[in-house]
Amino acid sequence: MKLVRFLKNDQPCYGLIEGEAVYAIEGYIFGKFRQAEKVATLTEVSLLGPCQPTKILGVGLNYRTHAAEVGQVVPPEPLLFFKPPSSVIGPLKPIVYPLLSQQVDYEGELAVVIGQRVRNVSPEKARDFVLGYTCGNDVTARDLQRQDDQWTRAKGSDTFCPLGPYIVTDLDPAHLAIRTWVNGEIRQSASTADMVFSVAELIAYISQVMTLEPGDVILTGTPAGVGPLQPGDVVEVEIEGIGTLRNPVVSQGTR
Amino acid sequence: MKLVRFLKNDQPCYGLIEGEAVYAIEGYIFGKFRQAEKVATLTEVSLLGPCQPTKILGVGLNYRTHAAEVGQVVPPEPLLFFKPPSSVIGPLKPIVYPLLSQQVDYEGELAVVIGQRVRNVSPEKARDFVLGYTCGNDVTARDLQRQDDQWTRAKGSDTFCPLGPYIVTDLDPAHLAIRTWVNGEIRQSASTADMVFSVAELIAYISQVMTLEPGDVILTGTPAGVGPLQPGDVVEVEIEGIGTLRNPVVSQGTR
Repeated sequence: MKLVRFLKNDQPCYGLIEGEAVYAIEGYIFGKFRQAEKVATLTEVSLLGPCQPTKILGVGLNYRTHAAEVGQVVPPEPLLFFKPPSSVIGPLKPIVYPLLSQQVDYEGELAVVIGQRVRNVSPEKARDFVLGYTCGNDVTARDLQRQDDQWTRAKGSDTFCPLGPYIVTDLDPAHLAIRTWVNGEIRQSASTADMVFSVAELIAYISQVMTLEPGDVILTGTPAGVGPLQPGDVVEVEIEGIGTLRNPVVSQGTR
Repeated sequence: MKLVRFLKNDQPCYGLIEGEAVYAIEGYIFGKFRQAEKVATLTEVSLLGPCQPTKILGVGLNYRTHAAEVGQVVPPEPLLFFKPPSSVIGPLKPIVYPLLSQQVDYEGELAVVIGQRVRNVSPEKARDFVLGYTCGNDVTARDLQRQDDQWTRAKGSDTFCPLGPYIVTDLDPAHLAIRTWVNGEIRQSASTADMVFSVAELIAYISQVMTLEPGDVILTGTPAGVGPLQPGDVVEVEIEGIGTLRNPVVSQGTR
């Protein structure tokens, strides 16, 4: 099942995609819901970020290939950081290159969307609390990341968390091809099988510390091939079984 | 004006305090509202955290005395970190000492509550976007803070952000006495005048990076005198002109 969030008469609402058709939803996507009438085709609607997280957790250095390219070792436990809800944008919305940074990098990632409130769950049961998966781009001001002790500015700028286009349920996240493209050139190509800590292990680890709420997002780390973006670029994150998240990059002030 | 959030027929709602009386509010506290009928006295209601932030920003080492006691120098720019909304608790609710930590410290702090959406504001205009001020406790697992590169676990545990009891508007945050007590013994005593970066400077700095939303909270840093808590303790943060935020400490599993 593919879930989307979009504007209908200027109101955000959830929908369900079949082929090119967008169907309305009756009910609550984090509880009980059913498919209702067809309301549009995909080309007619403006997609929003597919959920509204109360928090977003990023995971650093969760692919050995990426750890190697930045000269780091894989940490013994997941390296967690936060991105704020104000950083979320949907498909096709611009990533704004901030005046404060001279190096803004893409990081294509599998994003986990939590479906039910969860605390202190075991890895074995963790995936029962997942609604589905989407594409994420953990946009990072690399110069601020080097400069600052904490990654708040580097990871937390407005527009630094593109998510979408769909939340796909009924997907096994263990062996998905993940690719990132800049202006049509491939930059990252890996499999989620290369993650150091699996989706289930990450959820269990995080839930030892804090309650995950419906709609919360875990960005599961990026593979090798990260690199800089420039205003004018178009960046795409493609994940097998989900689709492609595409965002242009613009200068601050031109949004 | 003193604003509170409390449960009324199991529904969270805002109220206004005069003396011991709690008045209902008609309207939206981040927009237009007016005082309505008296609904209770303070002793009859269970106070909640006084706002529901979409994000909480902490500021590290913002008092010279605290930087000195932890052997650090004051950073040239504000040192920002996030605490998640899931860490917020209200007055009298228990701080849960997590199994993962052997050293949980209190940090009494002035908390700023944002009143209107703001981005890229100057220090001169920053305070126009503040709804008011409350007491905060930036509870920190000091051992995890030393151990982890990012402070996500150290600062982000459930119950690690007590806020309250009231949001006080019409308060000048520049010269307020701030004190923290553990089991009735004073542990921190300072003035907000000793902050390295003022409330206005912090808002301006953060708003260069990200949009602050109504209800978002900035914890403005802690003065000297931080120290450990134990299950069974009661910790109080008292700020001149606001009141006292009191929370007991319990072991994980006894909540």
